[in-house]
Amino acid sequence: MATKAQVLYDFTAEPGNNELSVREGETITITNQSIGGGWIEAQNSRGEVGLVPEDYVEVGKPPAFAAGGSVPPIDLSFFDSHATASNTQGQTSNGNDPWAVFDTNASGGFSNNWAAQPEGTETGQSGSNAWGSGGHGHPHAYPGPGAEDDEWDDEWDEGKSGGFGESETSDGGAINRGGAHGSSMKITLNKFPGFSKSGPELFLLSKLASKGPKLSIYSGEVGPVWEYTEPQLDCVVADPKKGSKMYGLKSYIEYQVMPNTTNKPVNHRYKHFDWLYERLLEKFGSAIPIPSLPDKQVTGRFEEEFIKMRMERLQAWMSRMCRHPIVSNSDVFQLFLTYKDEKDWKMGKRKAEKDETVGVMIFSTIEPEGLPDLDLLEVEQKCEQFSRFTKSMDDGVKDLLTVGNEHWKRCTGPLPKEYQRIGKAFQNLSSVFTSSGYEGEATLTDALTAAGKTYEEIAQMVAEQPKKDLHFLMETNNEYKGLLGCFPDTIGVHKAAIEKVKEADKLVATSKITAGEKVTMGKRVSTMSYALQAEMNHFHSNRIYDYNRVMQQYLEQQVKFYEMIAEKLRHAHSQFTTM
Amino acid sequence: MATKAQVLYDFTAEPGNNELSVREGETITITNQSIGGGWIEAQNSRGEVGLVPEDYVEVGKPPAFAAGGSVPPIDLSFFDSHATASNTQGQTSNGNDPWAVFDTNASGGFSNNWAAQPEGTETGQSGSNAWGSGGHGHPHAYPGPGAEDDEWDDEWDEGKSGGFGESETSDGGAINRGGAHGSSMKITLNKFPGFSKSGPELFLLSKLASKGPKLSIYSGEVGPVWEYTEPQLDCVVADPKKGSKMYGLKSYIEYQVMPNTTNKPVNHRYKHFDWLYERLLEKFGSAIPIPSLPDKQVTGRFEEEFIKMRMERLQAWMSRMCRHPIVSNSDVFQLFLTYKDEKDWKMGKRKAEKDETVGVMIFSTIEPEGLPDLDLLEVEQKCEQFSRFTKSMDDGVKDLLTVGNEHWKRCTGPLPKEYQRIGKAFQNLSSVFTSSGYEGEATLTDALTAAGKTYEEIAQMVAEQPKKDLHFLMETNNEYKGLLGCFPDTIGVHKAAIEKVKEADKLVATSKITAGEKVTMGKRVSTMSYALQAEMNHFHSNRIYDYNRVMQQYLEQQVKFYEMIAEKLRHAHSQFTTM
Repeated sequence: MATKAQVLYDFTAEPGNNELSVREGETITITNQSIGGGWIEAQNSRGEVGLVPEDYVEVGKPPAFAAGGSVPPIDLSFFDSHATASNTQGQTSNGNDPWAVFDTNASGGFSNNWAAQPEGTETGQSGSNAWGSGGHGHPHAYPGPGAEDDEWDDEWDEGKSGGFGESETSDGGAINRGGAHGSSMKITLNKFPGFSKSGPELFLLSKLASKGPKLSIYSGEVGPVWEYTEPQLDCVVADPKKGSKMYGLKSYIEYQVMPNTTNKPVNHRYKHFDWLYERLLEKFGSAIPIPSLPDKQVTGRFEEEFIKMRMERLQAWMSRMCRHPIVSNSDVFQLFLTYKDEKDWKMGKRKAEKDETVGVMIFSTIEPEGLPDLDLLEVEQKCEQFSRFTKSMDDGVKDLLTVGNEHWKRCTGPLPKEYQRIGKAFQNLSSVFTSSGYEGEATLTDALTAAGKTYEEIAQMVAEQPKKDLHFLMETNNEYKGLLGCFPDTIGVHKAAIEKVKEADKLVATSKITAGEKVTMGKRVSTMSYALQAEMNHFHSNRIYDYNRVMQQYLEQQVKFYEMIAEKLRHAHSQFTTM
Repeated sequence: MATKAQVLYDFTAEPGNNELSVREGETITITNQSIGGGWIEAQNSRGEVGLVPEDYVEVGKPPAFAAGGSVPPIDLSFFDSHATASNTQGQTSNGNDPWAVFDTNASGGFSNNWAAQPEGTETGQSGSNAWGSGGHGHPHAYPGPGAEDDEWDDEWDEGKSGGFGESETSDGGAINRGGAHGSSMKITLNKFPGFSKSGPELFLLSKLASKGPKLSIYSGEVGPVWEYTEPQLDCVVADPKKGSKMYGLKSYIEYQVMPNTTNKPVNHRYKHFDWLYERLLEKFGSAIPIPSLPDKQVTGRFEEEFIKMRMERLQAWMSRMCRHPIVSNSDVFQLFLTYKDEKDWKMGKRKAEKDETVGVMIFSTIEPEGLPDLDLLEVEQKCEQFSRFTKSMDDGVKDLLTVGNEHWKRCTGPLPKEYQRIGKAFQNLSSVFTSSGYEGEATLTDALTAAGKTYEEIAQMVAEQPKKDLHFLMETNNEYKGLLGCFPDTIGVHKAAIEKVKEADKLVATSKITAGEKVTMGKRVSTMSYALQAEMNHFHSNRIYDYNRVMQQYLEQQVKFYEMIAEKLRHAHSQFTTM
């Protein structure tokens, strides 16, 4: 008897890949469950047969979408007052804008940030939330650790999370312009192993002595700073190659990644980048904003321009990670860049997936060197200041992106068409003049034709210019939009910790914690604050560098553009008779 | 008992001028018929009282709109075959496009052109016909000769023909851009005194020896040419001054016109220009395209920009007339430019209005000097060639005007708004950065603010640029649209004459004319052809000059514009730190 299955998520088949498009809620018949590589063969009600991602269907059960429901309840019983209230509030506030939580409840309960997440998870399905797009909230989009031990051979394909990207509806000229890099850091409840133990209290009241190397924070000119090592790590992402598997049924793109430390290239598919992203998010996400990877995309995955754009964005993402002193020196990042062979990679992967210093525990490895403990008020003020700044900058960046998008459309759409029509009108008039039969107007008609052609050339220049300047301005701002989208999560962790420390007196009074534990909590929230300040200073320094560079590049190209137009017109002008 | 009157045409009151708006078909009560100045005082059904132009109402009779109906029937009985057929055809073809007649009936009956006119007259009321707008078809808009002997004091105001101009619906930025100069020459049936005698046969079979000076045509390098005299006449239209009359009830604008021959300025109101136009049209319209004056406009007549624009267009019209060797040397044109006093003007006016060498009789004064008679085939070929060329150029010019209009709208509307928004977005980001609290980013924020301001400046430049370049390109093309709109009428006269000569044999056979008269007709159509060729050569030579000049001016300004933008951006670029 054939096995029936419920489709959990929309899946759009890629043409020519033996895949079958299915819709959420549809019932399909599994015709071959042993295809392997994360795929099953199924038949829909219209009798069409094709491959469907295994994770997209549930055999014999109705679909369950309440993502929050699968999350183990948090044991916050001894923090009853704030937790319950703000959790409720968070869930009823606008889940599409994580800032809204801070806006409407500035004194922030510690669970606000977390509370906003499950809702984000639910609404993420719509795919249009700039803060949570890109596979956000798809329980199976990013397989958890341990689930793909055989991942190197097994093909869980990046295509599986299809239907989320905005790319398919993006307007001509720009691939994914609006959506890419736009997603926030994905600290979702089910991302952290053992979530119930991952609240800030885990670190604040931790009795574990932290193991391994320390992440030092020093007092720099601008305030607390991370330890920067020289030379700065960098890498080149290049040479995308198409590979195939499952006897040619499925294909993929492999990129070459070469770090400046070894100059030895390693190969990685998008899914490996995604694995790295998941590890970095797990390990550093509470302290460091880890921006999402460029959006996934199913259709046209092998289209040349898309591959080029994805590579460019993977390059930007890797460069940003390389520039981060903590991220770039981490074992998992080094593994990604310098693994020797498949065995090395597999061992490293397993080790990384077993790393227990993740979530808030990252703060246990941070050591402010020779910096005095901060009082809670200062910690809170800094946190509020960063929250305000990142919110404002997020607004500013989004504003620029909106304007830039419109300008892009105009420059690649109506404007060049108009210059072309002006050019055609001049040339047309020139033809008419030529037909006059009047002697001696060749100079005029030649000049008029040349002027017409010049405007056609200008039309083409105008249409191509955005790729030469606006593109980089947009990419940089998209990157920043992505980065800034991570701050609500990161800052949320800090706000939650602050709230807990505020309750310390009450907890001592009710003998929930000892006086010594209260002191420890104060010290630890101070460490967290130094980490946040070091991170903000890192952010600011990069921001200044990035915006200086991108504005220079933009303006330089703009100058060239206008100069070239002027030069072309000057030439066109010179062809008319001086009278 | 109060006198009732029927309103014949819509009239829109000018605010503050004691006028009363009335609608066609409305019945009003005349409260004072002895106001004078072409005005009556009337009361409408709502009890409102005000001045209404006398000519706009008919006392005690219902309105009659069939303009064709008031025209005496043409006695064409002895040209029965073509006349009737083509007349019918002409009247059922699209009267909005005079070219349509030539297109659909290339072998053209002589009355085609005339046949198209009555229809144009009827449809002219809609005001949107580019070929016939500007008062066309308004039986009272241009009073005939003799009707205003006391015109100098009597105020038939230019405002009276209100409701026709396209100006009131024109889009922001350009006054009257689409409509001005766009109207065709107004050879309407009721314009020529004694129309029934004004068909080409009047000249072809004329027994009168022409009196007065001859208009010579010579053989030039490019073919038959008019006699050009040096120095070329020119004049300056300047210094518009507001005057008033009827004890301040009505006001008007008077322009100073100074010819380069006397350097003595004379004053003229728009209505005087209009009178001149009517005389030139009557006298030369069959041989020389006399472009319409800039559109009339009632509302906002004294608005500064409108006056400036009208003056500029009157200047262009006068300059074009001055450049024409036949027009500029005519008595009526000289009178307009050089009258000594009011008496001189009045006498000259009366003389001009009594001139009988008008309509086709102008050809009787034309003398081809030492040029051989042309055979009919050549005459016809030339005529067809000019018809084709002027039609093509008309299409080309209109195309350019359409594109130019759209470009104007874009450059003064959405484009600068977008540059402004880009500028604001940069400045906004700069403010956000300033709020970071991070040390040492003043260079970046200052540069970013400067870049933002630069884009705001560019926005303004973009918005103002069309006035500096596109304006002149549009004005020149509008002038040519107006000129080209006269050709169907002028060429129509020639085609009609050719058709008549073609029938000469039959007429001789039926003893309608003598063999000698047939020879005369052939000679005379040859003279007409020389006149048309001389006129076309005049047109071509002016066209080459005008387009050379306007394209040079346009491109020169465009170069300056783009160079200035590049320069501004270069400065903005220099303010970012070099890293």
